[in-house]
Amino acid sequence: MLGEFDLIADFFAPLAANCAGALGLQDDAAILQPKAGRDLVVTKDLMVAGVHFSEDDPADLIARKLLRVNLSDLASMGADGIGYALGFAAPPEMDIDWVQLFCAGLAEDQKIFNVSLIGGDTVQTPGPLTLSLTAFGDVPAGQALKRSNAKPGDLVMVSGTIGDGVLGLDIKVGKWPELSVTHQNNLRARLQLPEPRLALGYSLRGIAHGAADISDGLVADLGHICTASHVGAVLDAVKIPLSEAAKAVAPMDANEFTSHLITGGDDYELVFTIAPEDRERVGEHSAVHGIPLTEVGQIVAGDGVKVLGADGRPIKLVQRGYRHF
Amino acid sequence: MLGEFDLIADFFAPLAANCAGALGLQDDAAILQPKAGRDLVVTKDLMVAGVHFSEDDPADLIARKLLRVNLSDLASMGADGIGYALGFAAPPEMDIDWVQLFCAGLAEDQKIFNVSLIGGDTVQTPGPLTLSLTAFGDVPAGQALKRSNAKPGDLVMVSGTIGDGVLGLDIKVGKWPELSVTHQNNLRARLQLPEPRLALGYSLRGIAHGAADISDGLVADLGHICTASHVGAVLDAVKIPLSEAAKAVAPMDANEFTSHLITGGDDYELVFTIAPEDRERVGEHSAVHGIPLTEVGQIVAGDGVKVLGADGRPIKLVQRGYRHF
Repeated sequence: MLGEFDLIADFFAPLAANCAGALGLQDDAAILQPKAGRDLVVTKDLMVAGVHFSEDDPADLIARKLLRVNLSDLASMGADGIGYALGFAAPPEMDIDWVQLFCAGLAEDQKIFNVSLIGGDTVQTPGPLTLSLTAFGDVPAGQALKRSNAKPGDLVMVSGTIGDGVLGLDIKVGKWPELSVTHQNNLRARLQLPEPRLALGYSLRGIAHGAADISDGLVADLGHICTASHVGAVLDAVKIPLSEAAKAVAPMDANEFTSHLITGGDDYELVFTIAPEDRERVGEHSAVHGIPLTEVGQIVAGDGVKVLGADGRPIKLVQRGYRHF
Repeated sequence: MLGEFDLIADFFAPLAANCAGALGLQDDAAILQPKAGRDLVVTKDLMVAGVHFSEDDPADLIARKLLRVNLSDLASMGADGIGYALGFAAPPEMDIDWVQLFCAGLAEDQKIFNVSLIGGDTVQTPGPLTLSLTAFGDVPAGQALKRSNAKPGDLVMVSGTIGDGVLGLDIKVGKWPELSVTHQNNLRARLQLPEPRLALGYSLRGIAHGAADISDGLVADLGHICTASHVGAVLDAVKIPLSEAAKAVAPMDANEFTSHLITGGDDYELVFTIAPEDRERVGEHSAVHGIPLTEVGQIVAGDGVKVLGADGRPIKLVQRGYRHF
């Protein structure tokens, strides 16, 4: 049981040991020393047990997803990661092995992404485990990628493959039993351990007009870019890049399946818009970073996101994207 | 019901309207532009309904306390407030009037303390309302007040009066019925609407050796300074400043009452240590800011916090301070 341990000293402080400004997690606050000529980028995501993850998911994967969804937000701003503050509201019956594994997951990803725990707060809750992470990154001053500069005529690009997150959720509840174990495992892994596209994000500084990470679903997040930029977008369903696992699904209705993949969320790929003349430059970045990029549509005057099916006619979407409320 | 509203656009975005870097709360992250020559100070506190506040407390006071306990952490670092990111995990049955009043409370304190909402996340929870706030402030580079520089021979000082927070909690559960309504109201107000000592905090830059805000109780928070500084402290019980309301309590046992006041927490005053030769300078700040400061003890070699009663003998403390787990 947690009560017998000093959570901060025993488990969290080691994660802050290499960051002088964390003050050993012994002080009232942490100190960040901003580098000259750089803006600080700040993002915050909450995850609640039973809503955003299952209580029986491995603790290290929960921790890593929590960190990665926040790093994905930094990626979509073109920022480099610096560190994070962790809010940890835990039920009293939580056991110490769980916390140990949770912190091992954070330690693993701290190394991979070169970030450090800098501070936070631990409290008890009568409710489910609730995790709140605030991540910090930085970019050269004025160069953060925003959602608000997409222009009619821009190409809409996405990284990686789309829809694996929601298929991973499907697999968890026993859907698509015809898929091979390998495909099922790949989809589950995409859901549990997303890949924040940090290297891509900062290669797009000065190039992307509008950028977002795909957490609520491609249509919804592209929609956010459109709203912020006062433009519309047209997506070509047939161009949307699918993983081998997604291709192996044999749905009853192709358009309905596409709609499922592009409105399901939890992909943590980047969607961004560029001027057509930058297409080649972006292709080079894609090759350098080994991250597949695909042109999936266009920005147009107007508003909203329209999706065209194989026959060139608009697909009716079942929903627009993940709703938080 | 919340589901019918867009929480961010309708309620939170107006709180970020004056902060360009908040990007209208429409982007993946916020942008902070650090001022040259200043360090950023970051703190985070969680509050859970039923643990840190009552569901039936007025929503505006819950919001203001959430913001103020974080500003109190900035004060204890000598920082000026800049802004904050809000994590809002709400049960589905929460009503819109409540959120409106909550945001009105934030708006009120944003004006008083000159800070802005810059970002955050809203999610649904099957558990109690859970609030996570990450506050940002800044200090001239290298001048943040830490807990780790207290030295033997330092005077231990506190601002305001001690113990009103825990007496406010007592009043909520019907204790001390002999107190006048005025006293009861004052104690309740101290609990619900603490006063972050920002002006005092930054006047102590370059003077205080160790500083903390009193959230866990005077003994516990002075204890944190002692641990971080590798020193001990001796408190004089008779010197501990009490409010008129606290003085009006007629306890059965004076030492037990003192122990209650100095281990109860929720005061949000500052405790700090200074060299004896700075006593006069600090007195001048006290006069300028209209914040009473009182010398309550001394830093000594060794470790731990000892409290001496009126007879000069150590008081046995019932507990050491608020435990989060």
